[in-house]
Amino acid sequence: MTIIKNDLFLRACKRLQVDRTPIWVMRQAGRYLPEYRAVREKYDFITMCKTPELAAEVTIQPVELIGIDAAIIFSDILVIPEAMGMKLEMIESKGPKLFDPIRNIDQIKQLKQIDPYKDLKYVLDAVAMTKDQLNGRVPLIGFAGSPWTLMTYMVEGGGSKNFSEIKKFIYNQPEAAHKLLDMISDSVADYLSAKIESGANAVQIFDTWGGILSPSDFEEFSLNYITKIISKIKREDEPVIVFAKGVHYNLSELANSGADVIGLDWTMTLGDVRKSIGDKVALQGNLDPTILYAPKEKIKAEAIRVMKSFGKGTGHVFNLGHGILPDVNPENLKYLVDVVKEESKLFH
Amino acid sequence: MTIIKNDLFLRACKRLQVDRTPIWVMRQAGRYLPEYRAVREKYDFITMCKTPELAAEVTIQPVELIGIDAAIIFSDILVIPEAMGMKLEMIESKGPKLFDPIRNIDQIKQLKQIDPYKDLKYVLDAVAMTKDQLNGRVPLIGFAGSPWTLMTYMVEGGGSKNFSEIKKFIYNQPEAAHKLLDMISDSVADYLSAKIESGANAVQIFDTWGGILSPSDFEEFSLNYITKIISKIKREDEPVIVFAKGVHYNLSELANSGADVIGLDWTMTLGDVRKSIGDKVALQGNLDPTILYAPKEKIKAEAIRVMKSFGKGTGHVFNLGHGILPDVNPENLKYLVDVVKEESKLFH
Repeated sequence: MTIIKNDLFLRACKRLQVDRTPIWVMRQAGRYLPEYRAVREKYDFITMCKTPELAAEVTIQPVELIGIDAAIIFSDILVIPEAMGMKLEMIESKGPKLFDPIRNIDQIKQLKQIDPYKDLKYVLDAVAMTKDQLNGRVPLIGFAGSPWTLMTYMVEGGGSKNFSEIKKFIYNQPEAAHKLLDMISDSVADYLSAKIESGANAVQIFDTWGGILSPSDFEEFSLNYITKIISKIKREDEPVIVFAKGVHYNLSELANSGADVIGLDWTMTLGDVRKSIGDKVALQGNLDPTILYAPKEKIKAEAIRVMKSFGKGTGHVFNLGHGILPDVNPENLKYLVDVVKEESKLFH
Repeated sequence: MTIIKNDLFLRACKRLQVDRTPIWVMRQAGRYLPEYRAVREKYDFITMCKTPELAAEVTIQPVELIGIDAAIIFSDILVIPEAMGMKLEMIESKGPKLFDPIRNIDQIKQLKQIDPYKDLKYVLDAVAMTKDQLNGRVPLIGFAGSPWTLMTYMVEGGGSKNFSEIKKFIYNQPEAAHKLLDMISDSVADYLSAKIESGANAVQIFDTWGGILSPSDFEEFSLNYITKIISKIKREDEPVIVFAKGVHYNLSELANSGADVIGLDWTMTLGDVRKSIGDKVALQGNLDPTILYAPKEKIKAEAIRVMKSFGKGTGHVFNLGHGILPDVNPENLKYLVDVVKEESKLFH
């Protein structure tokens, strides 16, 4: 077993003492980096996901170029629907497309329950290879979409403005919806367990579309399945992070899901959330990603505001409140990382 | 002065006793109605806004066809940027487009301060004509976009996914942004005052994009201007409603803005919000608009859940948590209205 030299991220997730706040950012292996774009010019997105050498290369880029405190494996949440039998395409500047979107129970019956070691071996290989190449410099995070978010893509067939189709589906065919959520949950739990077995030091569940649900629907269609997955993941002490974007209600229920860390978008006040659930879980976030468009003095002031809001002590993983945007200047991210590394010492 | 026969909406806004809860829904004069589509087939959207006879006709449709308790004048929030000098087009199924989006102070200096009686006379005529034709059946609501929301459209040039341009603008040119917000605020205040003078019994300020801001940015770039507008509107006792979609933080600050009613989207629990700010303002909302896709028993159960959550007593204006969607069956809205009219009696 490799010893992790910089384990600040893992310690903060477990609310153990640290001498500064760790930082990583969502989509850090991404288009804002010229070095990423250089790889992407030669291969399409899905090929990059499916080729362990390429996935490892771009996963490690922000560790070496930006100096962040945790790597997150380059992949996509839609590898699961694809492995379950749906046809996936990434359409440049339009986002993902899943063909023949799910609308009835017959289509659900034709989906297959995945075996990650067979159907998603390429991800596990990428995890193992990245782990090897990281050689203990920083921890490696694995991830998956939540069942609700994956089902939303599977029913809408891609992104959506009003989410009409998924809402029609859950309100008119609730039994079919729960059947599908159950199937996805089993797949996600097995997949995340396999990622940990392959070397991931932590896992994050992205509930990107949790925020489109009312509080009671969130509990019924999303939270219940996240909780079930967390209880099923095979792990030693690898932390589980849940990021439910836009979910400002149900935070204390989320804190009771078994997750070690709750991710927060930028519309919440970190200090207020810490007061309400900070004795149960660590918190990750929550700088507005568009602050990286600002001049350096503004970036610094806002980073300090986030840290001040959390206050003194451990239990904070610095991150953006959503993925880094593709047209951000990488210098600004580097500056943010340096500011957090330096200024956070005052809070420990 | 016309006496309003059904004044339940106005009474609930002022938290005066009512014998049942009033209901209206955002975008009730809209595409879900075949009678609206029949008019829309003959005229484009902007012509409908600018022709008082047509605006009055579609404004009154939901009063007669659905039996709702308040009419809201058919119009669009972007009439103000257009009156300030920007070129506006409504592009079918793609939304609005404002040409030559604002990106610098020179462009701002070329915008004009509007005189609603001259530049938006067609809206005031539509208000007066509708008022006349309603003949006191129900109150008439006027509306405007918040300065933040209007500036977002003016800088982005239309809708947006990441809101990169508006964020770049406020972080890199904050002085220009505040100058523009000031100009828009004056226009909105004058416009809403003129609508009230022309016969509107209440006004609603839509802050559609308030929710993309962090709590401190919301205060700086949105709330301050809303508060200023409310203090400037010339009115007798016409209620002011503020609907800031996605703004779940800053609710108590919103309640101190001078608004009589705060609109809530469907991601909040009405009862919780009532507990925190219900002694200061009435609340409007907040059924998930996609519930209208559900079978009738589900619609009924969810409507009752909303009313139960608010609890007994006045101060609740029933509404959806966002605009009604264009592919909803109007029968389902009619059913919802009937359910609210009947079942809400138990709460008064």
